[in-house]
Amino acid sequence: MELWYTEKQTESFGITAKIRETLVTEQTDFQKLDMIDTEEFGRMLVLDGMVMTTIKDEFVYHEMVAHPALFTHPNPKHVLVVGGGDGGVIREVLKHPGVEKAVLVEIDGKVIEYSKKFLPEIAGQLENSRVEVIVNDGFMHIHDHKNTYDVIMVDSTEPVGPAAPLFERGFYQGIFEALKEDGIFVAQTDNPWFKADLIQKVNRDVKEIFPITRVYAANIPTYPSGMWTFTMGSKKHDPLQVDETQIPELETKYYTPRLHKAAFVLPKFVEDLTK
Amino acid sequence: MELWYTEKQTESFGITAKIRETLVTEQTDFQKLDMIDTEEFGRMLVLDGMVMTTIKDEFVYHEMVAHPALFTHPNPKHVLVVGGGDGGVIREVLKHPGVEKAVLVEIDGKVIEYSKKFLPEIAGQLENSRVEVIVNDGFMHIHDHKNTYDVIMVDSTEPVGPAAPLFERGFYQGIFEALKEDGIFVAQTDNPWFKADLIQKVNRDVKEIFPITRVYAANIPTYPSGMWTFTMGSKKHDPLQVDETQIPELETKYYTPRLHKAAFVLPKFVEDLTK
Repeated sequence: MELWYTEKQTESFGITAKIRETLVTEQTDFQKLDMIDTEEFGRMLVLDGMVMTTIKDEFVYHEMVAHPALFTHPNPKHVLVVGGGDGGVIREVLKHPGVEKAVLVEIDGKVIEYSKKFLPEIAGQLENSRVEVIVNDGFMHIHDHKNTYDVIMVDSTEPVGPAAPLFERGFYQGIFEALKEDGIFVAQTDNPWFKADLIQKVNRDVKEIFPITRVYAANIPTYPSGMWTFTMGSKKHDPLQVDETQIPELETKYYTPRLHKAAFVLPKFVEDLTK
Repeated sequence: MELWYTEKQTESFGITAKIRETLVTEQTDFQKLDMIDTEEFGRMLVLDGMVMTTIKDEFVYHEMVAHPALFTHPNPKHVLVVGGGDGGVIREVLKHPGVEKAVLVEIDGKVIEYSKKFLPEIAGQLENSRVEVIVNDGFMHIHDHKNTYDVIMVDSTEPVGPAAPLFERGFYQGIFEALKEDGIFVAQTDNPWFKADLIQKVNRDVKEIFPITRVYAANIPTYPSGMWTFTMGSKKHDPLQVDETQIPELETKYYTPRLHKAAFVLPKFVEDLTK
């Protein structure tokens, strides 16, 4: 018998992956959580029926959330990751030796628990001494920590279910206040083929709050359309003004100093969404 | 009843699209040809079970085959497209007013016939007076036309079936000889997630023949992994030496002058395939 997992990315289009084994299928307090082992992409975390991460392609998302912002800020010491319970963004953040403390605020403790158990390649740095893991509502944490962080990364699910408030203008205002005077934030903002409206809305909201707003993109095969966008809001530092020759080479598989600015050069139809 | 078309892009991974209607399903002299109407991507041409083009995302592939090479060559007048019977690349080539003649050599006349009938948005320029359409083997045409073209574009299917010879070193040598002294060629070279070996092989072969070899990428949602690569071989002109400020803005949806060089900046794991 062959078992295939199919995700409908839209009402009429999807991806399908042959699976070896189902490791977890559970309704947590917040969402449906499935952990499956696929032949093509290895182990895969699925929340509310949407692929969150896989062993084979996770590096793209996690590197591209973390490094553009951390190499735009000249001296990031205190970093907050909202969501991201699989620990992949945290792993990338810790590659920056100047980061003294990385705080992870994940609303669903089960995501952390099962990621540690089944995705150790991704979650392996959550026990690092520079990391503080908090199981709580990111919205509340932001509200309670004014002028605290150099960089804030929003590694959320889609704007349905528990992550819906993380795409509201009020959340971006809270992030602005939780950042220090030269702070930077970045959020995953879905894909331009099926969710153009979302990219436009976030862009408008962030522009109203932050002096500098930039959008960049990366290729993630298991995410809808294969192209994912990230929106950056910055109080002072512009990612496009960074001197790429001064960026050190990290151990990465996607991000490079050469890609730092190139990732912000968008296809015409995506560029048009940010105007 | 719901009908879904599923393409296995690898043995264990694929895409699936809800269809409204099957318009053509036929075994031509060269390949299996299906034309279907999908809800998400509109009409879709499928050859030997692989998506070739769709109404919704065709612009990416066609623009990105045509414009990087045509804006690297300072004065392209004679252009050859090998394959590409749907006419999409020809449509983009004709956006360059300096092109006097664009020759299409497609081995399978049925692709041309059904594209004209069912994909007029794509094939609509095949009757243009600047275009010559030849139904023949591209390999033979190349062999018979030495020192003839400024730019040659290889818009082939995957390296199985009728297109297999188009990925051989001997074909690239033939292209070199069919190009004028400052000619440029470009070929689609599949995706880096599932076909890394192919990209490496083509890169090695082209490097042995052309003084300048460059690889660039674009996001195509209906192609495997969502990221597609293109390999360019050039006798004299380097796409990375082009002055982007001198590139005129065409009517495009993907390519822009700003993207001209950025498209060549590859993720680390893809960059490594080209070394």
